[in-house]
Amino acid sequence: MTLRNNTHLDPWSVKDIKNYSSLMDEFGIEPIETVLDRIPNPNKYLRRRISFGHVDLGVVLEALEKNEHYVVMSGIKPSGPFHLGSKITAEEIIYFQKLSSKAMVSYCIADYETYADNRMSFDESLKIAVENVADILALGLDPKKAYIYRQSTNKHVLDMALAFTRDVTYNMLEAIYGDKPFGLYMSALIQVGDILLPQTKDFKGPKPVIVPVGADQAPHIRLTRDIARKYQEEYGFILPSAIYHKLVKSLTGTAKMSKREPMGLLTLNDNPEVARKKILEAFTGGRETVSLQRKLGGEPEKCTIYELLMYHFVEDDDKVKTRYEACVSGKNLCGECKAYVAEFVAEYLRHHQKKRLQYIDLARKLLQTKTAT
Amino acid sequence: MTLRNNTHLDPWSVKDIKNYSSLMDEFGIEPIETVLDRIPNPNKYLRRRISFGHVDLGVVLEALEKNEHYVVMSGIKPSGPFHLGSKITAEEIIYFQKLSSKAMVSYCIADYETYADNRMSFDESLKIAVENVADILALGLDPKKAYIYRQSTNKHVLDMALAFTRDVTYNMLEAIYGDKPFGLYMSALIQVGDILLPQTKDFKGPKPVIVPVGADQAPHIRLTRDIARKYQEEYGFILPSAIYHKLVKSLTGTAKMSKREPMGLLTLNDNPEVARKKILEAFTGGRETVSLQRKLGGEPEKCTIYELLMYHFVEDDDKVKTRYEACVSGKNLCGECKAYVAEFVAEYLRHHQKKRLQYIDLARKLLQTKTAT
Repeated sequence: MTLRNNTHLDPWSVKDIKNYSSLMDEFGIEPIETVLDRIPNPNKYLRRRISFGHVDLGVVLEALEKNEHYVVMSGIKPSGPFHLGSKITAEEIIYFQKLSSKAMVSYCIADYETYADNRMSFDESLKIAVENVADILALGLDPKKAYIYRQSTNKHVLDMALAFTRDVTYNMLEAIYGDKPFGLYMSALIQVGDILLPQTKDFKGPKPVIVPVGADQAPHIRLTRDIARKYQEEYGFILPSAIYHKLVKSLTGTAKMSKREPMGLLTLNDNPEVARKKILEAFTGGRETVSLQRKLGGEPEKCTIYELLMYHFVEDDDKVKTRYEACVSGKNLCGECKAYVAEFVAEYLRHHQKKRLQYIDLARKLLQTKTAT
Repeated sequence: MTLRNNTHLDPWSVKDIKNYSSLMDEFGIEPIETVLDRIPNPNKYLRRRISFGHVDLGVVLEALEKNEHYVVMSGIKPSGPFHLGSKITAEEIIYFQKLSSKAMVSYCIADYETYADNRMSFDESLKIAVENVADILALGLDPKKAYIYRQSTNKHVLDMALAFTRDVTYNMLEAIYGDKPFGLYMSALIQVGDILLPQTKDFKGPKPVIVPVGADQAPHIRLTRDIARKYQEEYGFILPSAIYHKLVKSLTGTAKMSKREPMGLLTLNDNPEVARKKILEAFTGGRETVSLQRKLGGEPEKCTIYELLMYHFVEDDDKVKTRYEACVSGKNLCGECKAYVAEFVAEYLRHHQKKRLQYIDLARKLLQTKTAT
């Protein structure tokens, strides 16, 4: 697929994706259905098509089927607390880690991106990174099967990024990202280094790699695959596979959840009582009047409360279905539903935050270890 | 001076500089005469205006006059043997190092540039770097007052380069260098890091820095000063000073001496007998016939043999003058002059190469030391 829009999908500041199928066309993303029957015990993101598409996932599934090594690679930009988008990525990583004894995770703390995009020093972002890593450990990442590192301490990744600069031109980057500051281009190339790192000899590569990402990160996957293709002969790189999930809506119902709009943001660090209040004020799919809603039913597709249930917090499909039906039939009104979800989420946060506390020391230790140079 | 040509001076592949005074206009370079009376015991490059211009040299001279610290910073691209251009830079460095007990040298092995521009691995270029460093030590650099490092092992410099990417755009780099591969842009930014390194806190900066360079490197000095200006408030950088020397002519008389034209190239590594033969075949300022030369005299300004004498190998001004006069008066013919210079240079090379051998181990040791990270 070489069709490209004149308006670029901007991984650093996209507000919303209106049309997932044109995104799929543009970036050559296949529907997840094309491989779903080969994925054992699909998690809720796969079952509910929140993970809606993939590129070359078959390569990783073949490794899984043959009980061969593969790597699950992703990362986090340590610019703030773990939000719901990071939680999806984290749970996808953990899912693919648990799927095989031969799966290793490579988890990158993208502190160069934080530095270039948010002008945050490495010391500042390290504090946030410790919190972020404690979050993913509390969510279930097995640290014994994971390599967790900060970009700023990994000279190997920087060296790769600098190597790629030899074969990259402004035109190539402009075509993918539009006209951006040099720092963002460089942080994109460092990210390519992160994704290809597990394929280097030092990491016993090449081997299949799956990268779970939000749909807005599709340009990075494109650049990575373009570069991997260039070096395929020299290093034997296998083009990395990716799995894409949908963006998370802001609780105010407008576009993507973002730190720039605090009332619409929900993070795993939120005070449970504050989270509860935010949810009680969130945008729903309710009708203008009670009688109208009793008559027509609610609209869960528009509802951020339903998204909290369906995307993020309820594992049991039957429970989601029951709630959906109670909504569209007009049986449940928004007040009841909000109260239910608010309590559910507050309880989740209390539990998670207690668990996370136990992982802070380990997280600090993992990040202070000097990594491969 | 903001006047810029549409055709860019290309520091990676300039063939010749036809007009030094328009270069000076374009890059805001002052004639060396504006500060010459403040420089004690000027070396032959200064006396003979081979070092023809400077930017802000007054800042360094003031430190010298007040007996305060300053740094002499330059480097070499380890892609081949020390040629005569590297020798000028080296002797300028050594001259400014010897001028004060408060002068420190920072000498950078630009192996990232070799990597980006010549696609040479760090292992390959390390071997050449060892030779290069032995050369500068044999020329008289005092290693106790010098910090010698490779870019590839200096994470501090890479971190600075990456920091600068935050404030640099393609347009800014294109305006200075023209449209170049991303790798060359990045190696230019790394070079800015090299030049500003001595000004960081870790190196007890900020302090005045003088950078001796060939005239073709003027764009790098411009970029460095542009960036230093941006960070002046934040880090207290003092804009680096520079001293510029003329390019070295090829022995064939065409443009700049370059590895691409072996018969025109003279390096400190050359077999003295081979060097002698090259000189005997070099391009001179001689006339078409003997009788014409006796009548009109030779043209030393066009003569590569005279350049060898005047630029590179004869310290004594009287001796240069005597030779010049014997040429323009028609007294000396080219054959005699060539034989004289060929023997002079062969003897110089024998002596230098013997001396350099004694420095190889030290050079290796200096380069293998892991530097500041």
